[in-house]
Amino acid sequence: MSATFGNNLKVTIFGESHSAGIGVVIDGLPAGLKIDEKKIAEAMKRRAPNRSVASTKRQEADIPEIVSGYFNGRATGTPLTALIRNTDTRSQDYERTVELLRPGHADYTGFVKYHGFNDYRGGGHFSGRLTAPIVFAGSIARQLLEQHHIHVSARIKQIADVMDPGPYSAAEMEETERKDFPVVDMDIGRKMQDKIREAHSKADSVGGVIECAISGLPAGLGDPFFDSVESTLAHIMFSIPAVKGLEFGDGFKIAGMRGSEANDTPILKNGTVSFASNHSGGIGGGITNGMPVLFRVAVRPTASIAQEQKTVNIRTMEEASLRIHGRHDACIVPRAVEAVKCAASLAAADLWLEVNHD
Amino acid sequence: MSATFGNNLKVTIFGESHSAGIGVVIDGLPAGLKIDEKKIAEAMKRRAPNRSVASTKRQEADIPEIVSGYFNGRATGTPLTALIRNTDTRSQDYERTVELLRPGHADYTGFVKYHGFNDYRGGGHFSGRLTAPIVFAGSIARQLLEQHHIHVSARIKQIADVMDPGPYSAAEMEETERKDFPVVDMDIGRKMQDKIREAHSKADSVGGVIECAISGLPAGLGDPFFDSVESTLAHIMFSIPAVKGLEFGDGFKIAGMRGSEANDTPILKNGTVSFASNHSGGIGGGITNGMPVLFRVAVRPTASIAQEQKTVNIRTMEEASLRIHGRHDACIVPRAVEAVKCAASLAAADLWLEVNHD
Amino acid sequence: MSATFGNNLKVTIFGESHSAGIGVVIDGLPAGLKIDEKKIAEAMKRRAPNRSVASTKRQEADIPEIVSGYFNGRATGTPLTALIRNTDTRSQDYERTVELLRPGHADYTGFVKYHGFNDYRGGGHFSGRLTAPIVFAGSIARQLLEQHHIHVSARIKQIADVMDPGPYSAAEMEETERKDFPVVDMDIGRKMQDKIREAHSKADSVGGVIECAISGLPAGLGDPFFDSVESTLAHIMFSIPAVKGLEFGDGFKIAGMRGSEANDTPILKNGTVSFASNHSGGIGGGITNGMPVLFRVAVRPTASIAQEQKTVNIRTMEEASLRIHGRHDACIVPRAVEAVKCAASLAAADLWLEVNHD
Amino acid sequence: MSATFGNNLKVTIFGESHSAGIGVVIDGLPAGLKIDEKKIAEAMKRRAPNRSVASTKRQEADIPEIVSGYFNGRATGTPLTALIRNTDTRSQDYERTVELLRPGHADYTGFVKYHGFNDYRGGGHFSGRLTAPIVFAGSIARQLLEQHHIHVSARIKQIADVMDPGPYSAAEMEETERKDFPVVDMDIGRKMQDKIREAHSKADSVGGVIECAISGLPAGLGDPFFDSVESTLAHIMFSIPAVKGLEFGDGFKIAGMRGSEANDTPILKNGTVSFASNHSGGIGGGITNGMPVLFRVAVRPTASIAQEQKTVNIRTMEEASLRIHGRHDACIVPRAVEAVKCAASLAAADLWLEVNHD
Repeated sequence: MSATFGNNLKVTIFGESHSAGIGVVIDGLPAGLKIDEKKIAEAMKRRAPNRSVASTKRQEADIPEIVSGYFNGRATGTPLTALIRNTDTRSQDYERTVELLRPGHADYTGFVKYHGFNDYRGGGHFSGRLTAPIVFAGSIARQLLEQHHIHVSARIKQIADVMDPGPYSAAEMEETERKDFPVVDMDIGRKMQDKIREAHSKADSVGGVIECAISGLPAGLGDPFFDSVESTLAHIMFSIPAVKGLEFGDGFKIAGMRGSEANDTPILKNGTVSFASNHSGGIGGGITNGMPVLFRVAVRPTASIAQEQKTVNIRTMEEASLRIHGRHDACIVPRAVEAVKCAASLAAADLWLEVNHD
Repeated sequence: MSATFGNNLKVTIFGESHSAGIGVVIDGLPAGLKIDEKKIAEAMKRRAPNRSVASTKRQEADIPEIVSGYFNGRATGTPLTALIRNTDTRSQDYERTVELLRPGHADYTGFVKYHGFNDYRGGGHFSGRLTAPIVFAGSIARQLLEQHHIHVSARIKQIADVMDPGPYSAAEMEETERKDFPVVDMDIGRKMQDKIREAHSKADSVGGVIECAISGLPAGLGDPFFDSVESTLAHIMFSIPAVKGLEFGDGFKIAGMRGSEANDTPILKNGTVSFASNHSGGIGGGITNGMPVLFRVAVRPTASIAQEQKTVNIRTMEEASLRIHGRHDACIVPRAVEAVKCAASLAAADLWLEVNHD
Repeated sequence: MSATFGNNLKVTIFGESHSAGIGVVIDGLPAGLKIDEKKIAEAMKRRAPNRSVASTKRQEADIPEIVSGYFNGRATGTPLTALIRNTDTRSQDYERTVELLRPGHADYTGFVKYHGFNDYRGGGHFSGRLTAPIVFAGSIARQLLEQHHIHVSARIKQIADVMDPGPYSAAEMEETERKDFPVVDMDIGRKMQDKIREAHSKADSVGGVIECAISGLPAGLGDPFFDSVESTLAHIMFSIPAVKGLEFGDGFKIAGMRGSEANDTPILKNGTVSFASNHSGGIGGGITNGMPVLFRVAVRPTASIAQEQKTVNIRTMEEASLRIHGRHDACIVPRAVEAVKCAASLAAADLWLEVNHD
Repeated sequence: MSATFGNNLKVTIFGESHSAGIGVVIDGLPAGLKIDEKKIAEAMKRRAPNRSVASTKRQEADIPEIVSGYFNGRATGTPLTALIRNTDTRSQDYERTVELLRPGHADYTGFVKYHGFNDYRGGGHFSGRLTAPIVFAGSIARQLLEQHHIHVSARIKQIADVMDPGPYSAAEMEETERKDFPVVDMDIGRKMQDKIREAHSKADSVGGVIECAISGLPAGLGDPFFDSVESTLAHIMFSIPAVKGLEFGDGFKIAGMRGSEANDTPILKNGTVSFASNHSGGIGGGITNGMPVLFRVAVRPTASIAQEQKTVNIRTMEEASLRIHGRHDACIVPRAVEAVKCAASLAAADLWLEVNHD
């Protein structure tokens, strides 16, 4: 149990795929924070299905209702709550999966943890739909950061075996926000889309890697133990469904480097300390060093695929086979870019508010 | 600020490299837990310098004194505190670094965060020495887990560009515990040691990758949001100095796989649900599925190297150069294996105690 | 900032008197907990206005909608969220108070804390209406406790200067639940009601004291430091608006007693340890001792009174006078009995769940 | 379990009466905070036995060793840890109480909670000695507050049935700090001392009431739910052994007042909002209003008395009788004044640091 993330900006999410609604309570927003509802709507739309190739056909208005903590266009400083109604819930699509564990899903672990009492329809609380309240909350956190000249951006770095290697500047990464398919090099992007279509045509799915950059963070945020910048970001990143890996700066590549290569050399720049390189991803000893915080997450291929799969019937305790119908993304990565960006904004705002007050 | 890790087993660490001591308070140990002090001593020794090639020559007895919470060989259930005295502290080695930011170290971020008031000697609170209290606490957590048939093991998977690919069984990984150089394949291990010696001879350092397995965890531990098994492990792993990447199961490789390959097929085994593969690293929807929890961390090369490096003098605000003397590991990975194992034990015990009571 | 109470049962409340709604997220309910919605409705009704003399005429259906975490009549184990719409909101009653600080209210402290950005209408987040989500959540916690033979009851002990001294048994206290005016001795109750009517007729208000008993709690719950049973109960009690004092067992009276009188003598009863008296209110060293946990809270007289009062205009920074119109209770105590009972249930469930698992 | 208090200033205490030592970890002190060790020593001395009539003869140097987080006379910003060795531990005095539950003590509740594995010697973790680390930490918090013109003072208001009614100004209350017996009116103080001596002569004990004032706190600290100023102070006050009641401002007396009497009238004073009275104890809606925060705690008579008492033998499960030897205070109130003052300082610093940064 903990539906709450954060120390200084506490975010509590709730809801199931087919319950009356899903939503979020945000506690700790600075009183008086101006909130642009249009920006929230844009973020919600970027996360929503059907922006791109081979996405789920589930259509939900997904218009969050702000229930509390918001007055005259500003955060009041008391908990801001949003509710997103579940409307397009074809429960019958899922009823068949009550007994048959869907491979790659949390049907079995949810069944064990909740002793069979969880709402299994559409994945219930495990549904990717739960990233919608994260995006809602994160888009507000991102507005707070932007008002202090901190920018969070993300891009697709890899789909299947197609790479957009980079590195790219924060500005180039920010440009992706206006694209339906958030990749920097659109030529590579088209190859990625081909891979998604190809997987879809084979009743299969593909994964990928998302890169995220947070620029403008002042030096000095985070802690050596245990709330390092990496720990704080990792805590929320690994709660995004399908994320299986996370690396900062040069990440796993740094394991093969020499110290003399990996050390970022301190330099003077505009009268302050900066660094000649950013192998460490903007973090030293768990604390921001003023360089962009740079990280990548590995996203597994969508678990729901249309081909027949072997499984177990949890009620009869017999092996069985299963073909998943319904509406699913052949690749979740393009939509997950927004979830990563918004989750990163929540973590960054949490770290920033530790030191900075309204 | 948060020197405390954990929800059900709270661990608070303190101390600086050259303060009177370092230590840990452990809150939430089951009253009556039998503690074998010999096992703690063995773990402390595995973390200590000088077990292996090219390690720091700093010699400390590092014998923890248990100050509270321990009575007649058992945990009392009240906070168990251990103090490790700092004895072999050659402050003069470090005095020169007050002004010169050591590349790859937290000198700059610590200076900014603590406004210049932190204890800079030997890295202060950022010192790798702070893993000693983590090992102390983790070795107790590991004893708790072992008493419930949960085993935590770890091995060196990579040093520089030398790989010991695996996969290995939990049993094979556990064997490494008795080795001075905790690698499964000793032929590969010797090549790794050569790399370390080579780097040392060039006044340089190398990094690597550590793999860790937790076997025997019951299914049903962890949460979908936000305290997933991955989030909980990541939170503490990314507080171990030098860790820059973390991946579960197939990790970053899964990004390039098809859904039909990546899904672990549920099967029946001994009358219960199991899985035909473990691409997900024993975790589904943030919750243990009964398979071994498997993950890898990327460790950067040691920041302290003996060759001359460019840097900045933080007091005069001029560029400068620096040669670090003193005693340092050319590769921290062999010693970090114990820190990873013990940190993983703390996270696993925290998850396990959420559901299981004394 | 912390809209969240509890360690093992986390309750997050949100909303303002005149926002779209108020509500609560409950995290940590045992999966499979049967919930009787009728019992919730009864508790909500006991808290609602108009049960008794001289209460606010504000009429709200106050029917909570359960949005998540509830499936087939049971808690799913994931966050259970309820939303109560604000419907009968005559904002114009309060618009006049934007500038004039209402004596005894949080207008000034809210203005300072939230820099003038809080939703001031009807007291906003400070409104007594926020006890409705506490009652909703507490009535579920109470059902959990009842299913394990733990009973929480409360009674009016004092209104103005009229006392119902007691002591009463848990059974006698529970009887009050069926009364419109929750006092044990109805003769005394009528005198109390006279006092309320008298205050009302003079455009004034009165306060009182509520006594609460939790019986059936097993010995061994709570902590010596810092989450003692008293600390846990006090934390939530002092968040109920208008509570200004709290005492356990003999409370302030014990200050005048001798040790030989105050010590509860351990005795044997039905083969287990019990106590010959309960001066300590069922708590020793911060931990339950198996006797009923008994405490009393002092409730201040309603701040809103219809007579003219002096005050300050916070915008013009001039002294002014004010007459509060609108709908108010001449005495909040009868309705606060349910809030105390439900808040106590939340605290007791939080303590109980630390040790007992679903 | 939670040995930790605070959100912004986290204090973790540990130790048993007869373990190697007791101590505290303080996390969240502003880096650079100047600490006057002499002031700590004075506070420790005011808490120590033998200042006054009929106190325990246990003599301990109680000189805290600062182990970490302290450098060149200032807090480093990393966890500051202090260790107080237990030296004068006559365990034999207590061995007899292993089996015989001491009335009024936590012997039974500790036995149940810790399944008989707790360190029972001298009360173990329940010992009043654990207030020493609270005083250590609180005296540092108090220095932080004083540097920002916030003053915490306390006085004896009642011993047995002898009252020093007050009210007194903050200045008058602060004067008590220099007295061996911290009462404002020394004539009344002598009568109180007579009561203590009389109880002592009868092998009995007495309790009392302590009043505490925090002046200089800015308006706007604390929260409506759930971390109100009252909740925060109550949480730590009810963790001080022997505290059984707490009231703010007019407290229980306010229950008998009219609203027109109890409301504090806002006035203008030096160009800012103030109040004509302080019935609310400086708190409105859970938030400081700029007036002194005023509260009182009820302290029960010392449980350890020298006369024979009936009890139960927990091993044989037979009723028995017991005479407690050893060294005990006939009245803990004079020494508890410092514990209350320091605990209040911890709570006030925690609230203050939420809004104010180093």
